[in-house]
Amino acid sequence: MTPSSLQNLIQALRVLPGIGPKSATRMAYHLIQRDQAGAEKLVLAIGQALAKLQHCQCCNTFTEREICEICADEKRDQKQLCVVEMPTDLLMLERTLAFHGRYFVLMGRLSPLDGIGPKDIALDALLKRASDGVIEEVILATNFTTEGEATAHYLTEMLHSRGLRVSRIARGLPVGGELEHVDPGTLAQAMVERRPL
Amino acid sequence: MTPSSLQNLIQALRVLPGIGPKSATRMAYHLIQRDQAGAEKLVLAIGQALAKLQHCQCCNTFTEREICEICADEKRDQKQLCVVEMPTDLLMLERTLAFHGRYFVLMGRLSPLDGIGPKDIALDALLKRASDGVIEEVILATNFTTEGEATAHYLTEMLHSRGLRVSRIARGLPVGGELEHVDPGTLAQAMVERRPL
Repeated sequence: MTPSSLQNLIQALRVLPGIGPKSATRMAYHLIQRDQAGAEKLVLAIGQALAKLQHCQCCNTFTEREICEICADEKRDQKQLCVVEMPTDLLMLERTLAFHGRYFVLMGRLSPLDGIGPKDIALDALLKRASDGVIEEVILATNFTTEGEATAHYLTEMLHSRGLRVSRIARGLPVGGELEHVDPGTLAQAMVERRPL
Repeated sequence: MTPSSLQNLIQALRVLPGIGPKSATRMAYHLIQRDQAGAEKLVLAIGQALAKLQHCQCCNTFTEREICEICADEKRDQKQLCVVEMPTDLLMLERTLAFHGRYFVLMGRLSPLDGIGPKDIALDALLKRASDGVIEEVILATNFTTEGEATAHYLTEMLHSRGLRVSRIARGLPVGGELEHVDPGTLAQAMVERRPL
């Protein structure tokens, strides 16, 4: 009863992460009924992005050139390499203005449950990048989720075996955080990882 | 720092209902990093749907022809017209096999907060359709949400003023429902709208 082009559109929308049949149906109706101009823009934007985006040869983030802006910036510290999961994480770190070295973007995390193993994220490229003889310290800034922690653990083993110095961004209470309102796990870790003053 | 084609894609994905900046970003990375084939299929499907889908001249649902299958079916009861909000509602009703008349799909509901007034749903077409002299009863099957109820109320006034018989699908406990587990509002309505046996 549903026209096939509508069925196909609903099916196609399900490639988007987190979108099940109900959301896809709602989206399809919205695009066709309420926002055909938006739908046309979306078609154009996907096409452009597919055509133009590539991985930076140096840090693996998305860029429209061979080498991204940050990697091309000679003023950045060549000795520190910060490893993040996704380009969004890189942007968050840049916003802090607290890091002036280079980045490497894994484009994912180890996640055996989702079928993402060492070969599905850019580990080989990272090893090559970190072993350039200039990098002195690799700072792991993967998330503090189970997958992010597992990824950091795996990377540590791998990088240590090449004789590289590895560090991990700190875990603890947020700035302005109150003990009363923080979860017990974070508080326990903050105690275990206390810093000498 | 984010390449412009990536920024454009993230922006374009926000035309989808319920998608904010974070989801759009996640979707964009997914399409480019993990499922370029899916992204190409999506482009094709949107294009096809935009090109092929139109509103049924008779019931206003989406169809690839002038008149949809149900409206073209001579065997269906011409005297009953069931008004629903969306094509999905029509499909749900068809699945019950409990209705053999015709449908009219509003493609929305009155929702002043979202800026959807009487002119944004197909009220004029419904009035024309319901006044064809053959329809004897208009059954309102909009949702029992605030918007759906307001729409039903508005339609009742409008259809009554043309001398049409109007009814509303029943509200009450679900089949197999237990009083202990139903919400008080539904139970109260089930009491108020009790049926003589």
